[in-house]
Amino acid sequence: MYLTQLMTQSRFRFLISGFVAILAVFLCSVSYAADPLPSWNDGTAKEAILYFVNAVTDKNSKDYVEPAERIATFDNDGTLWVEYPMYTQVLFAFDRVKKLAPQHPEWKIKQPFKALLEGDMKTVGASGMKGLMEIVMATHSGMSAAEFEKEVSDWLATTQQAKFKRLYTELIYQPQLELLDYLRANGFKTFIVSGGGIAFMRTFSEKAYGISPEQVVGSSVVAEFQVKDGKPVIIRQPKIAFINDKAGKPVGIYQHIGRRPILAFGNSDSDIQMIEYTMAGEGRRLGLFVHHTDEEREYSYDRKSHVGTLDKALDRAAAEGWIIVDMKKDWKKVFPEN
Amino acid sequence: MYLTQLMTQSRFRFLISGFVAILAVFLCSVSYAADPLPSWNDGTAKEAILYFVNAVTDKNSKDYVEPAERIATFDNDGTLWVEYPMYTQVLFAFDRVKKLAPQHPEWKIKQPFKALLEGDMKTVGASGMKGLMEIVMATHSGMSAAEFEKEVSDWLATTQQAKFKRLYTELIYQPQLELLDYLRANGFKTFIVSGGGIAFMRTFSEKAYGISPEQVVGSSVVAEFQVKDGKPVIIRQPKIAFINDKAGKPVGIYQHIGRRPILAFGNSDSDIQMIEYTMAGEGRRLGLFVHHTDEEREYSYDRKSHVGTLDKALDRAAAEGWIIVDMKKDWKKVFPEN
Repeated sequence: MYLTQLMTQSRFRFLISGFVAILAVFLCSVSYAADPLPSWNDGTAKEAILYFVNAVTDKNSKDYVEPAERIATFDNDGTLWVEYPMYTQVLFAFDRVKKLAPQHPEWKIKQPFKALLEGDMKTVGASGMKGLMEIVMATHSGMSAAEFEKEVSDWLATTQQAKFKRLYTELIYQPQLELLDYLRANGFKTFIVSGGGIAFMRTFSEKAYGISPEQVVGSSVVAEFQVKDGKPVIIRQPKIAFINDKAGKPVGIYQHIGRRPILAFGNSDSDIQMIEYTMAGEGRRLGLFVHHTDEEREYSYDRKSHVGTLDKALDRAAAEGWIIVDMKKDWKKVFPEN
Repeated sequence: MYLTQLMTQSRFRFLISGFVAILAVFLCSVSYAADPLPSWNDGTAKEAILYFVNAVTDKNSKDYVEPAERIATFDNDGTLWVEYPMYTQVLFAFDRVKKLAPQHPEWKIKQPFKALLEGDMKTVGASGMKGLMEIVMATHSGMSAAEFEKEVSDWLATTQQAKFKRLYTELIYQPQLELLDYLRANGFKTFIVSGGGIAFMRTFSEKAYGISPEQVVGSSVVAEFQVKDGKPVIIRQPKIAFINDKAGKPVGIYQHIGRRPILAFGNSDSDIQMIEYTMAGEGRRLGLFVHHTDEEREYSYDRKSHVGTLDKALDRAAAEGWIIVDMKKDWKKVFPEN
């Protein structure tokens, strides 16, 4: 029997439409069940995330949270991108000292600039937080907002990370990109809450993470409005306005976001207060830390590291119900493909 | 001929489907042409707004702006709600002094508290900005973020404005609510950028204007993270962190939003710098001021007013291309229905 003849038989037409209906249901359920976090291995961390998102988005759940209150905050250095062996923004500041040196002959005799220009990193390190702040102020202020943005963008577009020989903005964590997408698809607003400079991060946050500038919270310098050559501009001043780190993180969240997060993700003891503040809210909450355990694919560091120290948080995690994400075990993939 | 017979005639069926198609097109064009700003009278201001929004959202326009860059900022007092004869937040502070007086016996002899408690507003006024700041600090700090939010919400829910005998949150401008909706429907992000307290405004911005807390930029006090009785809380400190007024507005926009607005709306000389900063960006921009000209439906005040002084901006508007919205002439309606 030819197909066209078959088609005209009403019983067969009925079978066909039944088959189409089943196929449609099957396709829908497949699309529903598709793994939203394909770069996360099965395990406690992934389960905790999926369970949490289901619980707060299911209208019939006792843990349901209105979309407006679905605030998720992420640290940046070591949580969304590589921070080891040195914070990217510090490397930017160092490079900028070298670039600006011809205009600053005084740096030849002034520490820590002298040491930095001579490659004597031991002396730079010995200058401590005071020395680092002098370097940051000298390289992050005294220009307009637009000029600073261009400096950062140009540097990020041309500077490769030493170990991976890739741009820093390519050394972002694929599992976290999936998590950010998954949260946004479930009505969350995603924020960066980082000790890094707010203006530094805003140059790449939208392109790298899909996080718009107004959803970036960070440290800042004082800024001034000036009319320069008849043109209104913002000029960055050599004075700290706010340090968005440690106990500063909940404060930054309060001042900038105005709502307590229901999910917070960090990677170091500097994130403890943000996680504490998040977890102390009413209803179901989720607090997570990335534990850098993967010497091969990224880096391995924690309790004794000079950057991203993860020590007290590791001790407290079990008792507090914080989730420790083991990079080696929990992440199928670390970075996006080239 | 019966209708059923008519229906079976193929020529008539053709006519019917033609009619349905025309009706559909008509309904679509009606919905397209429906006035998005029904409480705005026809005139220069309304035309300028409609023209601007069309220009920046039409992909074929030379003035097209990507949705991500469609940032609109609105002053609050006098631009979105009533500010006359005294800023609402100042009235809140005055009422709070009275409420707190039993716990502050020292206020019986300490100015400007003594004068305020005795109803001697002339002496309160003579204490100037210094006196006002003392009152604000005494009433806006020393409590947790949650406690302050409750104080403000309770006061706003129970206190009537003197002239209109309505809650302050009902004395918001209907034409501006339509404009906010219209802008958001056209892909804009709408922000409040006001000299008012950020935490004060956040208690009602979402319900009153559809503007979420994280899209409110305002003045702030220093805040501290503390663990109090084992519970992590934010405590408001008696120290100004930032004054988001005059030249502070573009700075607040830079620090908080991180992008230059393409539309800004104010109502006083305190908004001049925000409008200057907005208009100085590249491409088409729109800057507007509400001019309070309606003694009958609201208030009439401008150059010599003690609140919301509109003087220099009126002089500069024509030359700078700023739009002056004449409340009496341009607004069909001032407040939403009861």
